[in-house]
Amino acid sequence: MTDEMAKGLGERIPASLPNALRYHGLLVNTATGLYGWGAELETVYSGLANALSAEVAHKEPTELHFPPILPRAVFEKSEYVASFPQLFGAVHAFQGDEFAHEDLEKAVAKGEDWGGHTQLTDFVLAPAVCYSVYPLFGGSVLEGSRTVDASGFCFRHEPSTEPGRLVSFRLREFVRVGSPAEASTWFDDWHARASAFVRRLGLEAKVEAASDPFFGTTGQIMADNQREEGMKAEVVAPIGGHPVAVASINYHHDHFGRIFDIRSADGEPAHSACVGFGLERIALALVAAHGPRLAEWPDDVRELLWSGRTKW
Amino acid sequence: MTDEMAKGLGERIPASLPNALRYHGLLVNTATGLYGWGAELETVYSGLANALSAEVAHKEPTELHFPPILPRAVFEKSEYVASFPQLFGAVHAFQGDEFAHEDLEKAVAKGEDWGGHTQLTDFVLAPAVCYSVYPLFGGSVLEGSRTVDASGFCFRHEPSTEPGRLVSFRLREFVRVGSPAEASTWFDDWHARASAFVRRLGLEAKVEAASDPFFGTTGQIMADNQREEGMKAEVVAPIGGHPVAVASINYHHDHFGRIFDIRSADGEPAHSACVGFGLERIALALVAAHGPRLAEWPDDVRELLWSGRTKW
Repeated sequence: MTDEMAKGLGERIPASLPNALRYHGLLVNTATGLYGWGAELETVYSGLANALSAEVAHKEPTELHFPPILPRAVFEKSEYVASFPQLFGAVHAFQGDEFAHEDLEKAVAKGEDWGGHTQLTDFVLAPAVCYSVYPLFGGSVLEGSRTVDASGFCFRHEPSTEPGRLVSFRLREFVRVGSPAEASTWFDDWHARASAFVRRLGLEAKVEAASDPFFGTTGQIMADNQREEGMKAEVVAPIGGHPVAVASINYHHDHFGRIFDIRSADGEPAHSACVGFGLERIALALVAAHGPRLAEWPDDVRELLWSGRTKW
Repeated sequence: MTDEMAKGLGERIPASLPNALRYHGLLVNTATGLYGWGAELETVYSGLANALSAEVAHKEPTELHFPPILPRAVFEKSEYVASFPQLFGAVHAFQGDEFAHEDLEKAVAKGEDWGGHTQLTDFVLAPAVCYSVYPLFGGSVLEGSRTVDASGFCFRHEPSTEPGRLVSFRLREFVRVGSPAEASTWFDDWHARASAFVRRLGLEAKVEAASDPFFGTTGQIMADNQREEGMKAEVVAPIGGHPVAVASINYHHDHFGRIFDIRSADGEPAHSACVGFGLERIALALVAAHGPRLAEWPDDVRELLWSGRTKW
């Protein structure tokens, strides 16, 4: 973004994000929890993509990218609605005739809630990238384990001015599907690996036991169980003084194997584990730690992100 | 994607896409009109991104990237609902308590239409990237014109097996906002420029007068007017024998200037024009024309996409 644009758009950048971003025009505000971004942050995202590819290369994963949309059939099967009903986004569309269109237009013009003029489609917003991965192995018996390097935009309906809490964001997930031993080793290994990666970016990272935001009173019990059984951990790093989860490591046991009918060689439901990196959160933490000018970031961080590239 | 994955996932790739993609595992099917993709196509997308940046560099545009989501307030203001109600996607979310959650879960389990258990949120899916751009200039008087290079995922609710017709896809849009002369010159210039770009990719491109898919019987009149007044053109290239629009060039007159209160220096509503490139369609056309192995593509095409890169 040019300095002129940064100045012109400065007042549109929300006060809740680090000053660096606000004053230097790295983000443009579109709505609460929803931002556009300029060339600098895009350069950071592409650097992170490269660095993460290098991080997982020794596992020779299958690289897959997914659109921000998930088929509703997969979503319904995933049991996401049972655990996190407060977070999903379902895609509705207008499917009426010209008379119904007139009614829709009137409702929009009057500022009414026009949701009732639309119908549920076959699509939802992807709540996580790995939900697109499991169905690909559905109904199969795996010989050995599979590793997938999956990327895509996710949506969670939690509009917020909290730093790094976005409604639409990119996740990079390394997913392992296989035997219980293979999945739990993956889970264990990535505790050290993911936190070391974040530290090499010059960020103060620590690993913490964590739980998912399960819904309601039963959800609290599920969260307690998850924490007690050590099924989830997060790599936490500061964004402008606030500790924020920039990566999460999850052991799903046979949850997805069972749901999507994926079996290990022994015929039992496969186990799975994944590590997910929140690209926007890591980028915000980087800017908060190293400042808004990429050219002034520490040499080793620049090397990690853009080695072999001449741009920075 | 490894050969093994390609074989394993081969049967999931829809018959309607070019054989090259089906047999070589460049895409994985998730639902009708919705696909994941592997490392090869991602390399093509990043090459196209580079080549398009070079194409617009002389205009010194402001580079902006947007998430796949648009604020509902912007969408309502845009008059999209009047023209293309059949295409938009609105984001609905569950906002109830534990009792309502139980009802939602039951509806999902029974395979009922559970849309009524959710409410319209403040978000819709972006139908085009430039809708995120105009509000940034809202309420301002422009001194001279502005050029924005905007990228993002778009959604259109038209699930189809037609080659290149996706529900979720990437648009790269070069947007010009300014005086009538500046916008119409932009529109005129990009007829030749966009088609020349597509031809340099080794594709048989031609420019055709076009119209948008306006809804209903009034829509037909609007489409006829648009075509008559020469407000829209498309660059058409073959995907496996089918002619498909891979880029579109649009002159909006003062439509967005009026709606978003953007004014030229003379105080009149600004005019705007944009050229949009459909990355998935161009990539499919490239694979259809040059085959599934990127290393075997013509030297000049490889040079245009990946010059200065060592990967291919």
